[in-house]
Amino acid sequence: MEKTQVAIVGLGTVGSGVAKLLLDYGDRTARHAGRALWLEEVVVRDVNKSRVCELPAGILSNDLSRITRNPEIKVVAHLVGGLEPARSIMLKLLEGGKDVVTANKALLAEHGPELFDRARALGRSIAFEASVAGGIPIIANISTCLSANQITSLHGILNGTSNFILTQMEDRGWDYATALAEAQRLGYAEADPAMDVDGSDAAQKLAILAHLAFGARVHWRDIPRVGIDTLDGADMRYAKELGYRIKLLAVAKLERDGLELHVSPTLVRIGTPLAEVRSANNAIRVVGDAVGPVFFHGLGAGQMPTASAVVADLIDTVVGRTAITFKLLNLWSQQPPRVHPRDYSQVTGRFYLRFDVEDRPGVMADITGVLGRHGISIASVIQNEPSGDGAASVVPLVIMTHTTTEGATRAAMEEINGLVCVHSRSVRMRVDD
Amino acid sequence: MEKTQVAIVGLGTVGSGVAKLLLDYGDRTARHAGRALWLEEVVVRDVNKSRVCELPAGILSNDLSRITRNPEIKVVAHLVGGLEPARSIMLKLLEGGKDVVTANKALLAEHGPELFDRARALGRSIAFEASVAGGIPIIANISTCLSANQITSLHGILNGTSNFILTQMEDRGWDYATALAEAQRLGYAEADPAMDVDGSDAAQKLAILAHLAFGARVHWRDIPRVGIDTLDGADMRYAKELGYRIKLLAVAKLERDGLELHVSPTLVRIGTPLAEVRSANNAIRVVGDAVGPVFFHGLGAGQMPTASAVVADLIDTVVGRTAITFKLLNLWSQQPPRVHPRDYSQVTGRFYLRFDVEDRPGVMADITGVLGRHGISIASVIQNEPSGDGAASVVPLVIMTHTTTEGATRAAMEEINGLVCVHSRSVRMRVDD
Repeated sequence: MEKTQVAIVGLGTVGSGVAKLLLDYGDRTARHAGRALWLEEVVVRDVNKSRVCELPAGILSNDLSRITRNPEIKVVAHLVGGLEPARSIMLKLLEGGKDVVTANKALLAEHGPELFDRARALGRSIAFEASVAGGIPIIANISTCLSANQITSLHGILNGTSNFILTQMEDRGWDYATALAEAQRLGYAEADPAMDVDGSDAAQKLAILAHLAFGARVHWRDIPRVGIDTLDGADMRYAKELGYRIKLLAVAKLERDGLELHVSPTLVRIGTPLAEVRSANNAIRVVGDAVGPVFFHGLGAGQMPTASAVVADLIDTVVGRTAITFKLLNLWSQQPPRVHPRDYSQVTGRFYLRFDVEDRPGVMADITGVLGRHGISIASVIQNEPSGDGAASVVPLVIMTHTTTEGATRAAMEEINGLVCVHSRSVRMRVDD
Repeated sequence: MEKTQVAIVGLGTVGSGVAKLLLDYGDRTARHAGRALWLEEVVVRDVNKSRVCELPAGILSNDLSRITRNPEIKVVAHLVGGLEPARSIMLKLLEGGKDVVTANKALLAEHGPELFDRARALGRSIAFEASVAGGIPIIANISTCLSANQITSLHGILNGTSNFILTQMEDRGWDYATALAEAQRLGYAEADPAMDVDGSDAAQKLAILAHLAFGARVHWRDIPRVGIDTLDGADMRYAKELGYRIKLLAVAKLERDGLELHVSPTLVRIGTPLAEVRSANNAIRVVGDAVGPVFFHGLGAGQMPTASAVVADLIDTVVGRTAITFKLLNLWSQQPPRVHPRDYSQVTGRFYLRFDVEDRPGVMADITGVLGRHGISIASVIQNEPSGDGAASVVPLVIMTHTTTEGATRAAMEEINGLVCVHSRSVRMRVDD
């Protein structure tokens, strides 16, 4: 049987999973590729680091030139995290004539234009299925399977860490800090979880998907985003009373005046597919104008789900499908964007608002008066009796609005926060209906 | 811009949808294909039939040779239903040098080996995304996106008509006949719904998926199948009491001794994704040994969802991806199967059993005695009080078993049906846990 030599740079969790699939399950890759994918070199920073992964003798080194100078190696799985040296390594691989498969979404979100332009100039390809939603093949589905559609919206649960924490908070009634500690103990959250829980990771993935699905050219830092790190368990309970769950939703939605884009904790109606996504799973609901809604659900991270995506890309690259798709899609090119982001303050939706207010006459009138002046119409209100301990004369007031705008609710909140009857931080969250 | 000429044979519901996408949305197909897909010919049986679809002048005819003799036409959407003349038309197209895209699952399930061998011999390709699950791109996902996996199981709701009827029966408390009539009135069921409701349609789709995912070579008629056409609304209510919904499930599951394959009304636990598939939707849960479970949900039929799949295949064929995949997958070839079906009587699972029994002492002992002799262990029992009208001394006895086999439960049922205390037809359904 013919063979194609491949290499791996970076032997962390995902790299080890890819090595395992190539070494232990060569029969299946060979069946799908029509040739053996032969793991010829594995390059790491520190060859002395202890590793779980068992490699054939002589293929592990810290010398990237063993890959770049070997013309027999055609395709390289680039599984190095972070921005540098990940960026330099990818450029060296492309310049060495290698097609590249990567799982590094941060790198694409930050340096996509440079890397893709370089690959095009050199006649090489970059495949990146593993960069978004781990094992769910959302890149291929948007890029090719749904190509007959104008995609009109995309709602994703794209950060497994956040979803795990939210599930724990809901199921166990924990506060954010306790749920985060549990996620860290179980390996679902990094020691420094900032990018996961503040919405940055989801925004990076959303920027990639919005580029593929809509031709948007938006830097992830320009996507309005709120994380789950300031979420109060009390709001999860009020949401539940109203028939909703809170999910960190990444949304891209095509409207007449542009593309709505945001990442934020959002109330999602219980019983709808996105509300039922539990634990560290990911899910994406894509609506196409021909196909209607298509829903994808699976493991968004983890060694083998991510390795599954990387190896599928390796196969696609070896057999020539990637070269075709890469050339046609012309991603992150100098072409003008097909759509611009909407002014976020004009983005519409329903909102969940919660105020901690003094329990005395006139407060409700003050607050609803401000909402009314901003043109915000109220759909429902929850105001429970104050707890019986007599200590607090502050009670939570929860308001669900009818459809309004980001701008109106933000302005109203600022004004309401200035009222003397309103204590502590008020809460505002989007509602997905 | 370069253009590639394409043609359509058959201008029914799906054909009209494909024409619409090609004619009205040429910009998007051009963007994904890097060239215009130019609709050059549309061939139908009867040119005088009135049609909703507006075509450019001069392209409609009843003359297939206008396609087969035109060397400029490279790819043809074959949207003719049934087996003949669908088969002959496809052979003529292949022999005319055309790559073919089809939505006809019955044709593939029946004549796949002949058609694919012929295509291979002629250096042509057949694409068939639209043949299973309409708008859900399950063929591409199994064939390429999940290619790093050994798929270990596949659970599908593949017949939208059946699922629509089941949803109506459950939501409205209707019996089967009433729900079927409603499905026919709304266009979700054909005048002759036999293939949809007796499990044949789902078995044809399952045969295709099992071939792709497992390398099985099973004729759909050899897949054990039960339809929903004998389903009693009472069992839906008992199932619900037990925490389950009844779904027409198509299952392929890899076990040590072969591939478990069947289509049958199955109790699915409420709250799991498959149980929440409503109305005429389709869904497939695929488990891969690397990726874990991946769940796909969408519209399984209808004009535009199916046209979406056909046009994606047209694009894949025009750009050359299909040729690569078709050659590599070597589907329906003379290669030996990679797996054989398991003996159905050995297939394990939990079962739901319902007996209408006389309401007198000893009956429970008679029935559980038979079950015990067949090695069937009981997980739970529901026996309600007889209804108060005093007319009937016959009461339903519902038993959920622990894990046992098809063979044991079938044999036990036959024996129990022979008991004098058992009235009317007993019911046996699989439980998916």
